[in-house]
Amino acid sequence: MLLPLCKFHHQYLVRHLRCLAVRFYSNDQISEEVAKLLELKAKLGDDSQKTKFVLKCPKGTRDYNPQQMAIREGVFNTIIKCFKRHGAETIDTPVFELKETLTGKYGEDSKLIYDLKDQGGELLSLRYDLTVPFARYLAMNKIQNVKRYHIAKVYRRDNPAMTRGRFREFYQCDFDIAGQYDAMIPDAECVKLVSEILNQLDLGEYIIKINHRKVLDGMFAACGVPDDKFRGACSAVDKLDKTFWDDVRAEMIQEKGIDPIAVDKIGKYVELKGRTELIDKLLEDEAMKAQKSAVEGLEDLRVLFKYLELYGITDKVVFDLSLARGLDYYTGVIYEAILQGFAHNPKAGADGDESVSVGSVAGGGRYDGLVGMFDSKGKKVPCVGVSIGVERVFAIMESRALASNTKTRTTETEVYVVSAQKNLVEERMKICKELWDADIKTEQSYKRNPKALDQFQYCETNSIPIAIIIGGSEIEMGVVTLRIVGSREERTVQREKMVEEIKSVLANLN
Amino acid sequence: MLLPLCKFHHQYLVRHLRCLAVRFYSNDQISEEVAKLLELKAKLGDDSQKTKFVLKCPKGTRDYNPQQMAIREGVFNTIIKCFKRHGAETIDTPVFELKETLTGKYGEDSKLIYDLKDQGGELLSLRYDLTVPFARYLAMNKIQNVKRYHIAKVYRRDNPAMTRGRFREFYQCDFDIAGQYDAMIPDAECVKLVSEILNQLDLGEYIIKINHRKVLDGMFAACGVPDDKFRGACSAVDKLDKTFWDDVRAEMIQEKGIDPIAVDKIGKYVELKGRTELIDKLLEDEAMKAQKSAVEGLEDLRVLFKYLELYGITDKVVFDLSLARGLDYYTGVIYEAILQGFAHNPKAGADGDESVSVGSVAGGGRYDGLVGMFDSKGKKVPCVGVSIGVERVFAIMESRALASNTKTRTTETEVYVVSAQKNLVEERMKICKELWDADIKTEQSYKRNPKALDQFQYCETNSIPIAIIIGGSEIEMGVVTLRIVGSREERTVQREKMVEEIKSVLANLN
Repeated sequence: MLLPLCKFHHQYLVRHLRCLAVRFYSNDQISEEVAKLLELKAKLGDDSQKTKFVLKCPKGTRDYNPQQMAIREGVFNTIIKCFKRHGAETIDTPVFELKETLTGKYGEDSKLIYDLKDQGGELLSLRYDLTVPFARYLAMNKIQNVKRYHIAKVYRRDNPAMTRGRFREFYQCDFDIAGQYDAMIPDAECVKLVSEILNQLDLGEYIIKINHRKVLDGMFAACGVPDDKFRGACSAVDKLDKTFWDDVRAEMIQEKGIDPIAVDKIGKYVELKGRTELIDKLLEDEAMKAQKSAVEGLEDLRVLFKYLELYGITDKVVFDLSLARGLDYYTGVIYEAILQGFAHNPKAGADGDESVSVGSVAGGGRYDGLVGMFDSKGKKVPCVGVSIGVERVFAIMESRALASNTKTRTTETEVYVVSAQKNLVEERMKICKELWDADIKTEQSYKRNPKALDQFQYCETNSIPIAIIIGGSEIEMGVVTLRIVGSREERTVQREKMVEEIKSVLANLN
Repeated sequence: MLLPLCKFHHQYLVRHLRCLAVRFYSNDQISEEVAKLLELKAKLGDDSQKTKFVLKCPKGTRDYNPQQMAIREGVFNTIIKCFKRHGAETIDTPVFELKETLTGKYGEDSKLIYDLKDQGGELLSLRYDLTVPFARYLAMNKIQNVKRYHIAKVYRRDNPAMTRGRFREFYQCDFDIAGQYDAMIPDAECVKLVSEILNQLDLGEYIIKINHRKVLDGMFAACGVPDDKFRGACSAVDKLDKTFWDDVRAEMIQEKGIDPIAVDKIGKYVELKGRTELIDKLLEDEAMKAQKSAVEGLEDLRVLFKYLELYGITDKVVFDLSLARGLDYYTGVIYEAILQGFAHNPKAGADGDESVSVGSVAGGGRYDGLVGMFDSKGKKVPCVGVSIGVERVFAIMESRALASNTKTRTTETEVYVVSAQKNLVEERMKICKELWDADIKTEQSYKRNPKALDQFQYCETNSIPIAIIIGGSEIEMGVVTLRIVGSREERTVQREKMVEEIKSVLANLN
């Protein structure tokens, strides 16, 4: 009788671990450890019963059902239309890359990369974004200029928050312009594109925050942060959209080892928001104007804001010194679009009082050094781009569809072939063949002798506009009955005119 | 001076391993082992020079460039149109599944599954096909009836043969009908669908081989193979499309331990091909008709062939006893479409003499037990489906495009805004804004002062139909010059009529 003891032992262990763990680990880490132990327990445990099979998607992932797919396709179509309006072509890359391709590109976030098991051969990792594969593609094919979009899934071992559209497997929709061009012309187009996409997705009010890596670096230098601590300071500032200044301050001092005096100076700068008047003010700021990097960044922003005015979107953008963006590879302008006033939970805030921000829905920036990291001679290809956070868009659209209680059609079936009496499956098949061959979207029951009521019910449930009905008398007379499902209006049609008549009815219905 | 020794040591090892390995391993295994050692060598080796970076896609995978994407989208659109014509909706599932979801579904092929590294949490594997995730989805959501398609990438650690369209990452396009229906009605529709897709892709002559797992099992029993060796015999017969009978015979006897007398009987049966007359003949065969399973399978096929006649595709199908299909989960009708007479290499066989088969382009069958494997009470949902081998289709289309030397447009840009003299970037931007906001697909140069010739060249290279040209005089007069790029015809248009005029020109050009 070893099993009960084993079981007890594991229960004890799980509980014990939970107690110990709360002191040292995050909730997520604890859950994972517990899951691992429970798995072990399941293996060791009672093997007299059939192994309990866990029927689920992996943590942080989901299936899309047909309704969700319809929403997803609608969102993609809107976005692709915008990308094409700006002359982009599209590419695709494998879902995994050589591990070394991803190494050293993501700073602190590298720990979130999924690795594949070493099963012999190359060491592989799932792609973490679409930007690094794009840079690898450019370098590998020695491409100097391209404007491309790429819509595909990426993978991050992050803590999922799926109701808010944060997953471990999620789509990115990226648009990037690669090439040696004049300052801020492609950058301004990326910001314009974001505003077009957000307008056309009709997600409500938004603001596009803008900053510049050189302004950030200049700011850190102006505050007295040593060069080698810029990236650390940057990744701390990046958390300001999710947490309070006090926490960020503590991280900078305790974890990044930055002098508290410098940190407090940073605290003053990152409060600043504005447009061209703020750019002018900072160019006058004694500490900032002493920093070459800051001045270069501010000059860029001055040009950018002039272009954005020509593009008519000044009211949608704000220069925000607290915007940092975590990724290591940015070198110039950075931006992030934030949705405002949209209550994600359709119940909360339905009256407009309790509006909850769902946060960032698009972001990007300039990365002039990334492609060079893949070139044996370090040859650079300057790039700027934007990534649309479509998962949040899906989440909003799904909750809207739920709230409005509208049913989206998930098929496009035009005709359902109904047999009004028994033993007509072969006659139905002949009609289906004729309709399919005439490119009419047609279904029939997969039963030999379906009930008439079930067949009509199917048409109504699935919003199929036309039913073609056959019975013994129709076959005898060489006709079919055509029913308009919506109005229940029926007419008799000569069999040889059936296709023609259906096409004319469909044309009228549309 | 440890390094040179290390280097020498590794070179020696690599060479030595190669010598030893050829005796025991396949070429592919050797290459992988060598790659691993070389990697190790790179890590240990000369660290005074910069690490040599390997710029490539993982083995067996590829990027799609914009031309290839255009081909891919064309193929998908044709296939999706056929799926929708048959009333299918679509779903999506994650790229990885819990490892245990895939366990025990693929027989001998399980060794080809990609596992993810254990980084804490669940054990995951990349999906191997779309059928098992579909079955998991049905069981998890307790769905009894659905007709769905799913187009997504799947992963197999196979020996790639990329020029023939065999990859480690590749697309599957699956259509499946789930539900408890009457015999052969959904099965016949799947075969009909395959023929529609192959006709519409216009790939040339093809034949759809048909067999039945119960006929195969009955045949094995009739030949004296014991029950527990059916699957082994089946997976050996499955290789008949790639190799000779003698090899299959040897595998059955030596690896699967089947009695040579039984094997030789099998050899006679698997030569048989035909249509209804073969079904009738086998129903008269003494050994076969003694097997309940064989009789059931043959009765199914008799009904199927009647339905396929009603669907008008008898000439496209053949009952072929050598068709086995490797996957464990099939339980009824199985089928596979083979392209014939298409020379994959456009040079060889261009004169029609040397036609080379590129083999299977679609396959599928009935799997009534798979969903039940995921249900805690074993509740079954009968399914039948088909998977289109689009990678081979892409390979054929790509080599055709190459041979015909036609350039596919990869963008849809309608207007290019050209500045005829210096310092007009801001004027160009105003025009671009106006056109984008009017939903006209517009591009401009990303240089402040691009050369006129370069701009016109860009229009011609990219087949952009209209150029809008501005210079000092145009701005002064409040007009633009509209040039039809194809004919070089030019006209002056009032600035406020520009959008209207462009739309009318575009409508005429289409």
